[in-house]
Amino acid sequence: MKAARYYGKGDIRVDDVDEPKPGDGQLLVDVEWCGICGSDLHEFIIGPGILPTKEKPHPISGQHIPLTLGHELCGRVRSPPAGSKFQDGDAVMVDPRVLCRSCLPCKSGSSHCCSNLGYVGATTGFGGFGEKVIVTEDCLYLLPPEIPLEVSAVLEPLVIVHHAIKVSGVKDFKDKDVLVLGGGPIGFALLLCLKAAGANKVVVSEPAGARRNQVSEFCSSVINPFQEDVAKRCMELTDGKGVEVVFDCAGVVPALEGAMDAIRFEGLYVMVAIWEQPITIPCHKFVPKHITMKGSYIFDDDSMQEVIQMIVDSKLVGIEKMVTGRISVHDIVSKGFEELINHKDQHIKILVSPK
Amino acid sequence: MKAARYYGKGDIRVDDVDEPKPGDGQLLVDVEWCGICGSDLHEFIIGPGILPTKEKPHPISGQHIPLTLGHELCGRVRSPPAGSKFQDGDAVMVDPRVLCRSCLPCKSGSSHCCSNLGYVGATTGFGGFGEKVIVTEDCLYLLPPEIPLEVSAVLEPLVIVHHAIKVSGVKDFKDKDVLVLGGGPIGFALLLCLKAAGANKVVVSEPAGARRNQVSEFCSSVINPFQEDVAKRCMELTDGKGVEVVFDCAGVVPALEGAMDAIRFEGLYVMVAIWEQPITIPCHKFVPKHITMKGSYIFDDDSMQEVIQMIVDSKLVGIEKMVTGRISVHDIVSKGFEELINHKDQHIKILVSPK
Repeated sequence: MKAARYYGKGDIRVDDVDEPKPGDGQLLVDVEWCGICGSDLHEFIIGPGILPTKEKPHPISGQHIPLTLGHELCGRVRSPPAGSKFQDGDAVMVDPRVLCRSCLPCKSGSSHCCSNLGYVGATTGFGGFGEKVIVTEDCLYLLPPEIPLEVSAVLEPLVIVHHAIKVSGVKDFKDKDVLVLGGGPIGFALLLCLKAAGANKVVVSEPAGARRNQVSEFCSSVINPFQEDVAKRCMELTDGKGVEVVFDCAGVVPALEGAMDAIRFEGLYVMVAIWEQPITIPCHKFVPKHITMKGSYIFDDDSMQEVIQMIVDSKLVGIEKMVTGRISVHDIVSKGFEELINHKDQHIKILVSPK
Repeated sequence: MKAARYYGKGDIRVDDVDEPKPGDGQLLVDVEWCGICGSDLHEFIIGPGILPTKEKPHPISGQHIPLTLGHELCGRVRSPPAGSKFQDGDAVMVDPRVLCRSCLPCKSGSSHCCSNLGYVGATTGFGGFGEKVIVTEDCLYLLPPEIPLEVSAVLEPLVIVHHAIKVSGVKDFKDKDVLVLGGGPIGFALLLCLKAAGANKVVVSEPAGARRNQVSEFCSSVINPFQEDVAKRCMELTDGKGVEVVFDCAGVVPALEGAMDAIRFEGLYVMVAIWEQPITIPCHKFVPKHITMKGSYIFDDDSMQEVIQMIVDSKLVGIEKMVTGRISVHDIVSKGFEELINHKDQHIKILVSPK
């Protein structure tokens, strides 16, 4: 079968590879669409970073590059074994997490912190940029008619941010003013979920004009941090009080520093971004203001089904706008990775068909 | 009257100054003892830092250096006005915070975040290293017989850490394993409060041998981070689980980095220290582990009375051991500041009598 495999920085090739063979408890899924994630792009630009190498193979799977990428994937179940709750041809979204289910976090119900975490499309040898994947049944979510396969791959980033909103611990966003740093794919997905959560004012800080245009209809105000003082604007927009919650989907020092001035005393700062460098926090703002900072990573066992239900209940509006391109795997480098590098701001999510 | 005044880096002089005159609603207090705080020491070594200068006077009081230092102070009420709840000669602890009571934090019950915060002994022109101070009645706490004036100045750091424990949000420490970074005065005070809170295992990381000796009877284990791997030891001590709460009373990068490995997934990191540099956090540990970091600064309106009650109830045991020196203000430089610089590790708290 065809699969786009990562060999190293700037080197992704469409290869003929063996089909993965389902083992006990595993199902075969024909991939329909798979989104290109920022982390895939990151590996392409400056990797290998988190991808296992020959010198340092993955501790659980033993896999190393070249590896098939793609973890934001959906498809159709093929020839499920007897006793499966799925039927042949069922449209499904895949939870790409490979969990050990035996570490302390997994046993404590916090699989998002699994000590041995792997991913389909990163550590397994197969992924969403290939024609087929194999996964355990508990990683498959039946897609209802309200979520066609043509858009469902965007569920993955939506689940990431839905989880981050849960991690924030805020029970009711209705009277909360929020600052979102970064209007890229994660920032955009977050806006949809914050709207569903009924957040009061939602302000986005995003330097790229195209992205500011994309997000403008889903938030209260958009700020260009290169032209405006983010903290000053946030103070104006909140009657001098400051925002109560910041979601960092940017991961850069100037954005964090501005947010430390924009945030209200005893405010909450949720770190969704993965910083390339250490997170640097000005202590004289963080400590005297009694700010709480929380890290949020991937998602828990419940979040994917919850997001599916939110879409069925028409609570997440505009998800189809997240798809800004659909391409074949044969064009994955030129129309996928290179397009995202050269015209990043024009896109939210490019979906790849492995066929 | 005599007062030790700060003129600049390395320059503290005992001057004859005018007595402060109580205005409406203010009481005069004869200072008995006042502790030398780490922040006083910091100003002496590399200041002026937070102290207002002639070029940048305090925005509320208009005061600037030279200024009388000292904010960990106790004393006796003198000639209270008619209608005061205090009697002449009452032994009192002073809350040194000067609050505006009109900003959003103050009005919201979070005076520890007062936007216009000042301090007796930093921004008022008088302080605990002088013979007399004037304060409003709500800043005075009657000392019961259980807390003699000879030790009560250590209440201030105890209140700081009691507040930090409240800020942590941990309702019950009984099944919590805790790592305390730094065994100085704040770390030591924290150990007494954690013992009162019934914390399970309390591990201290402290490089100075004298300090390790001081804290050893008040915690489960003491680690020398220059000789042992703090994270590895914490894992051993917690059956491979890691600590659930870290209190950072050190404010240095290597301690934080070790703690990020020592802390359990979804653990809590309370920042009590004021870092001289930006706080730098390794993102690849903080975010995937879902760590929460909270800043805690000074204390709220309730904490001082709560700590007094804890001492009365014999819940805080060992506070007298915090006093490692008592000196006269006339020796404040040689036997106070210079002693703390040259033999810092031998001391927890040196108290100064302004007489």
